[in-house]
Amino acid sequence: MLIVKKFGGTSVGDSDRIRNVARRCAEEYQKGNDVVVVLSAMGKTTDLLLDQAREINPKASKRELDMLMTTGEQTSVALMAMALHAMNIPAISLNAFQVSMQTTSNYGNARLKKIDTERILHELHDRKIVLVTGFQGINKFGDYTTLGRGGSDTTAVALAAVLHADACEIYTDVDGVYTADPRIVKNARKLEEITYDEMLDLATCGAGVLHNRSVEMAKKYGVTLVVRSSLNDSEGTQVKEEVSVERMLISGVALDKKAARISVMGLKDEPGIAFKLFNTLAKNNINVDIILQSIGRDNTKDISFTVDEDEADDAIALLENNKSRITLQSVTCKKDVAKVSIVGAGMMSNPGVAAKMFEALYNVGVNINMISTSEIRITVLVDQKDGEKAMNAIHEAFGLAE
Amino acid sequence: MLIVKKFGGTSVGDSDRIRNVARRCAEEYQKGNDVVVVLSAMGKTTDLLLDQAREINPKASKRELDMLMTTGEQTSVALMAMALHAMNIPAISLNAFQVSMQTTSNYGNARLKKIDTERILHELHDRKIVLVTGFQGINKFGDYTTLGRGGSDTTAVALAAVLHADACEIYTDVDGVYTADPRIVKNARKLEEITYDEMLDLATCGAGVLHNRSVEMAKKYGVTLVVRSSLNDSEGTQVKEEVSVERMLISGVALDKKAARISVMGLKDEPGIAFKLFNTLAKNNINVDIILQSIGRDNTKDISFTVDEDEADDAIALLENNKSRITLQSVTCKKDVAKVSIVGAGMMSNPGVAAKMFEALYNVGVNINMISTSEIRITVLVDQKDGEKAMNAIHEAFGLAE
Repeated sequence: MLIVKKFGGTSVGDSDRIRNVARRCAEEYQKGNDVVVVLSAMGKTTDLLLDQAREINPKASKRELDMLMTTGEQTSVALMAMALHAMNIPAISLNAFQVSMQTTSNYGNARLKKIDTERILHELHDRKIVLVTGFQGINKFGDYTTLGRGGSDTTAVALAAVLHADACEIYTDVDGVYTADPRIVKNARKLEEITYDEMLDLATCGAGVLHNRSVEMAKKYGVTLVVRSSLNDSEGTQVKEEVSVERMLISGVALDKKAARISVMGLKDEPGIAFKLFNTLAKNNINVDIILQSIGRDNTKDISFTVDEDEADDAIALLENNKSRITLQSVTCKKDVAKVSIVGAGMMSNPGVAAKMFEALYNVGVNINMISTSEIRITVLVDQKDGEKAMNAIHEAFGLAE
Repeated sequence: MLIVKKFGGTSVGDSDRIRNVARRCAEEYQKGNDVVVVLSAMGKTTDLLLDQAREINPKASKRELDMLMTTGEQTSVALMAMALHAMNIPAISLNAFQVSMQTTSNYGNARLKKIDTERILHELHDRKIVLVTGFQGINKFGDYTTLGRGGSDTTAVALAAVLHADACEIYTDVDGVYTADPRIVKNARKLEEITYDEMLDLATCGAGVLHNRSVEMAKKYGVTLVVRSSLNDSEGTQVKEEVSVERMLISGVALDKKAARISVMGLKDEPGIAFKLFNTLAKNNINVDIILQSIGRDNTKDISFTVDEDEADDAIALLENNKSRITLQSVTCKKDVAKVSIVGAGMMSNPGVAAKMFEALYNVGVNINMISTSEIRITVLVDQKDGEKAMNAIHEAFGLAE
């Protein structure tokens, strides 16, 4: 078997943790398996490097930031190789140049294009554990790039895909995907399995153990992911195309407290207005989530939407500055809101799911501000103070703890 | 003009120093010159990385140590690029992969074989300052190597050679090569120029501003070196093939207090004994400096030699363990000795130099333990307590302060 394992920054945060990860990789190796390990930069390394850069140039170029950042993962893989050697396990570290991890040319947020497997296969053939730097690539100019948020997960999934690995294990500080955040819902239950689509919707709804990009890539190439804890040996959650039919309707409830609702009133009721509005936001990199349009008075319309709380002020300022062009009369913002979502591949064929969710909220006296649905997801916007109560009520109503 | 500048770890030790170096490079660039800058790892970085490695594996493999160490220079060049950008100077950082800095395969102490100038020339053509990682290379396996002690100087000289640079400036914490160590000889004078051979002999005698390897390479390829201070603008010392004939006999006096004299007595007077003795030491990486052989009693011979003080105990133990094979009767060691050397290309044609040196020592009552000479160097071994007195007396006798 060929296993790809990915460990994040916290898992390799100090010498003891590095030794701990080395031990786990050694165990896998000693079963006779081929092992490829993808590592992120150690704990706070990335932040420290960014601080150094900021001190020298607050507007450092992305190319040079990538040149700086990529030293982080290289340090991790070199130290991990040393830890494995200390246990008498053959191992070798490789960076993006050595693997030839080719990406698009945009620094700071590149996409993987092609991975040359020759060197890795050669080292596996020599019965070595191969340690690969996550997050980093090289572009057509022969320069370092980085893959942006969740980049190391993406590296691991891509390697699993091109190496036709039997499993791709993503080690995190939680031991799997839960029906709800265990810190909020006491009897939340770990899921044995979940589909790619459900995982994607959960991530979008603020319950992101995995970054969307890596899940999308896993779905595209049919790589079965396992989300596991780097601290214990529990089984984790499998993320795959289809899950057993026996599974219940809903796989989880997600809560996102960092939402803000913006309402734009008095827009002209003519074609192209919505385009102007959202294009203005998109061009300024403001991500819009739920959108709801309603009829206003006097031949105008109102549009409400949610954005990340941190981006709310920018969005408001932007809209005020483009008031006449967008034809809006007024903008209001409500920041103390939360998004509560249920996700489940089973709900497509079960019309009663939404009603059941709304009933649960009614029973605990939670008012719904907005509603948005997709094929496998229902999201409601509630007051921020009601978020946790709503989550618990829904978790209970669908019997997710059983 | 194309200028290669090399700055060591202390010169880039923190943000202020990085900005200071950036300013100097910017000034050169603004004169219209092409500028290539070679950097070492920042200040204590190398030591910190080594500590991290040692904590995880005290016997870390050299390959993985090189993988770890090379992050140091990459950090320096990326930060320097950011500093230059902050001054609106176009600049780009390149590591050993990007330059294709090809070396022999031995990790930790590789030799440069070939440098691909294409990328550097391309960036210079775009009127960018090109920042290159010193000390590091890649071998035929596509792995990082490091060049060992003085590696960044070697990188700079090699780049100056392949790029046919007009000058190769080595910036250090002293502002040139002096007739003697200014901390010991108060009126020591900075030399305007010195030959490669003199520089090599000075380095061997413990007055090493430059590492031998970089001077040897400069000599081989006819690269004129300039040793300058990174802290002030003074002219520095030129190191080249020939210096003006007007120059005096002696270019400098060097003192090495870290010597130890070992005397091996009662060796059989037959062929191959000296070979056995020094081969045993060489195989154990003990460097021998001055060697002196004399006739002992009863058909035996005695051999004395000097080694680095730190290696004296190892040398003694080694000789005791091979007593019968080497046919020695006894070994003694004197650690409180110092080597005093005078170096000068002019002494070849001046027979009176040695006599003048010995006279100077006699005048201040310094006893000579051993003498060794080369074409452009005379070294004497004296008691350690006499070292500085001897140095001053010789400096005075040859009128080096004038």
